[in-house]
Amino acid sequence: MNAPYKATKISEIGEFGLIDRLKNKISLYNNLTLKGIGDDCAVIKCQEKKEILISSDLLVEGVHFDTTYMSLAHIGYKSVIVNLSDVYSMNANPSQITISLAVSNKYSVEDLEKLYEGVNLAAKNYKINVVGGDVSASFSGLIISITVLGFQKKEKIIYRNGAKKNDLIVVSGDLGASYLGLQLLQREKTILDEHKLPKLALNDIEDKLKDYKYLIQRQVKPEVNLSAINFLKLNNIKPHAMIDVSDGLFADLNHICNESKLGFTLFEEELPIHQQTKNASLDFNIDHVLAALHGGEDYELLFTIDQKNKDIILKEKNLKIIGEIIPDSNKRNMIKKSGEEISLSKLGWDHFGKTN
Amino acid sequence: MNAPYKATKISEIGEFGLIDRLKNKISLYNNLTLKGIGDDCAVIKCQEKKEILISSDLLVEGVHFDTTYMSLAHIGYKSVIVNLSDVYSMNANPSQITISLAVSNKYSVEDLEKLYEGVNLAAKNYKINVVGGDVSASFSGLIISITVLGFQKKEKIIYRNGAKKNDLIVVSGDLGASYLGLQLLQREKTILDEHKLPKLALNDIEDKLKDYKYLIQRQVKPEVNLSAINFLKLNNIKPHAMIDVSDGLFADLNHICNESKLGFTLFEEELPIHQQTKNASLDFNIDHVLAALHGGEDYELLFTIDQKNKDIILKEKNLKIIGEIIPDSNKRNMIKKSGEEISLSKLGWDHFGKTN
Repeated sequence: MNAPYKATKISEIGEFGLIDRLKNKISLYNNLTLKGIGDDCAVIKCQEKKEILISSDLLVEGVHFDTTYMSLAHIGYKSVIVNLSDVYSMNANPSQITISLAVSNKYSVEDLEKLYEGVNLAAKNYKINVVGGDVSASFSGLIISITVLGFQKKEKIIYRNGAKKNDLIVVSGDLGASYLGLQLLQREKTILDEHKLPKLALNDIEDKLKDYKYLIQRQVKPEVNLSAINFLKLNNIKPHAMIDVSDGLFADLNHICNESKLGFTLFEEELPIHQQTKNASLDFNIDHVLAALHGGEDYELLFTIDQKNKDIILKEKNLKIIGEIIPDSNKRNMIKKSGEEISLSKLGWDHFGKTN
Repeated sequence: MNAPYKATKISEIGEFGLIDRLKNKISLYNNLTLKGIGDDCAVIKCQEKKEILISSDLLVEGVHFDTTYMSLAHIGYKSVIVNLSDVYSMNANPSQITISLAVSNKYSVEDLEKLYEGVNLAAKNYKINVVGGDVSASFSGLIISITVLGFQKKEKIIYRNGAKKNDLIVVSGDLGASYLGLQLLQREKTILDEHKLPKLALNDIEDKLKDYKYLIQRQVKPEVNLSAINFLKLNNIKPHAMIDVSDGLFADLNHICNESKLGFTLFEEELPIHQQTKNASLDFNIDHVLAALHGGEDYELLFTIDQKNKDIILKEKNLKIIGEIIPDSNKRNMIKKSGEEISLSKLGWDHFGKTN
């Protein structure tokens, strides 16, 4: 049996008390930090001959996450991954984060400790240090702001704007799964709401979702595809342009092509889509190709490489060549299985929105 | 006459449209950024033989600021200063910030442009670059998350924990003014609320507050005391410990003494308190010494130095020796004008709270 769940009000221990409690959940997983939490700033070793990469993300309860179907530990974990992914997608290595929280009084100290357990697990898995942050009151829900620092040699950093014509477009894993995972969780939430079931009913829901475990995991506990990064490194392949698939394949490929002033052709039959994604798409009457194109939150790497690397890429089963960069920047097309070539610019989120 | 005020809904131009509009308000004021806004991360030059300092702060509407009596431009300006102050207080130089916003639909695109004008003015005045961030929806008001990066040689960084016994305690300017400024603004807000006056009545209030301009300015547009930093540098004085006065003299001196495992004695008659602070304290029936001890948001530098530097410090009118570090870490005392020595630990915020 579980011990009764303790819920300490944040006001009972105050801001500094809370920071102390949360600090205890955090360990250091690399030796690149001279001073962590506890002064006006953290102090970080400059890494010789490397540049600094920095990215910030803000996650708002009800907009980016929902505590009804996602545990605070998962929310903490995912918040970190989303940020690390931005550093990896520039071919750099993340090494520190700061995390700031704004918290309404519906959350207890123990709730935030759970969140930090998730943060710490991500830190451990990716060998980064949590070096600072801030905790504040909020009037509505939970807001998580994370900033990540990473390092890389100047010549190894990969930008969005480096794609070259005739480059192959490669993705490091399947697409659309996270989006379908979200649909499943939102459907179960609606059922919960309608029947006013207690949160414990989540156990039943877990059972109902057992055929879609992969989709749920892609949504609630995404990972960065480090094996893809290592494969490229081992084979001395430096992509010309790279991004992580957060907004969706189409949107993120547009970012690359807009910045590189080029166009693209995708091959529908090459899009990697998991069987569970196809099955769940049937349940929701969603076209699984549209889910792959627009779903987002896959956190796979999307990059363009020189055609000469084709044979090496084909050796790695998780890397999939899904299209080509073309000179005409106005063309953002897909060749369908039928052989028909269609413009994806006319098949955006709006269209997608209407199908579900 | 002013042109009619345009209010564009954020939803009209979307997230990317908004980012473009805000980006246009920002210029770069140093050449230490290789890539600013526009990729997954910003890329920043590592400065040779210097370490990196990082600090994050989260500011929540209704908790840290109030748009009733503070313009969005001032809120933007102050948000940046609060963060830069953390870097300067470790004797380092800030050079980049990221800024993330969560915004409820009561704010227009033009409102956020005003905020960014304030951010940009601070960036210009302190020669820093805004290199990234995020914009998101919020359910309640405005949330501003800023992360600042700074640089300094390892041996020049000053921590909280370096104070030594018999050090002199020095502050770079007067204390308590910002707190009284806040009381004045909150009083006028109450009047506004009671009479349901339109915002235009703020002009009348400005007139009423003309004797307290200094206090209002300390509250709504704080600055970092760069001349104090330059004076120390020119005279080759390296403080042993340093912090900025954000939580209040007593709380921040406690941070230094807790980290340094030492105590302090303050001299009441040496506390620098502006005449306007004294006058306004009378209006509010507040003890101005308590305002100086506990008010906070002064953003002056508070540091401890070796006694041998006393004569040099006395030469600079803005630097004030207000006490001494003592070996007994349990003693956090003040010698009153009467000669009586009292323990400040028993005269904290709670007591302060009861007087007003």
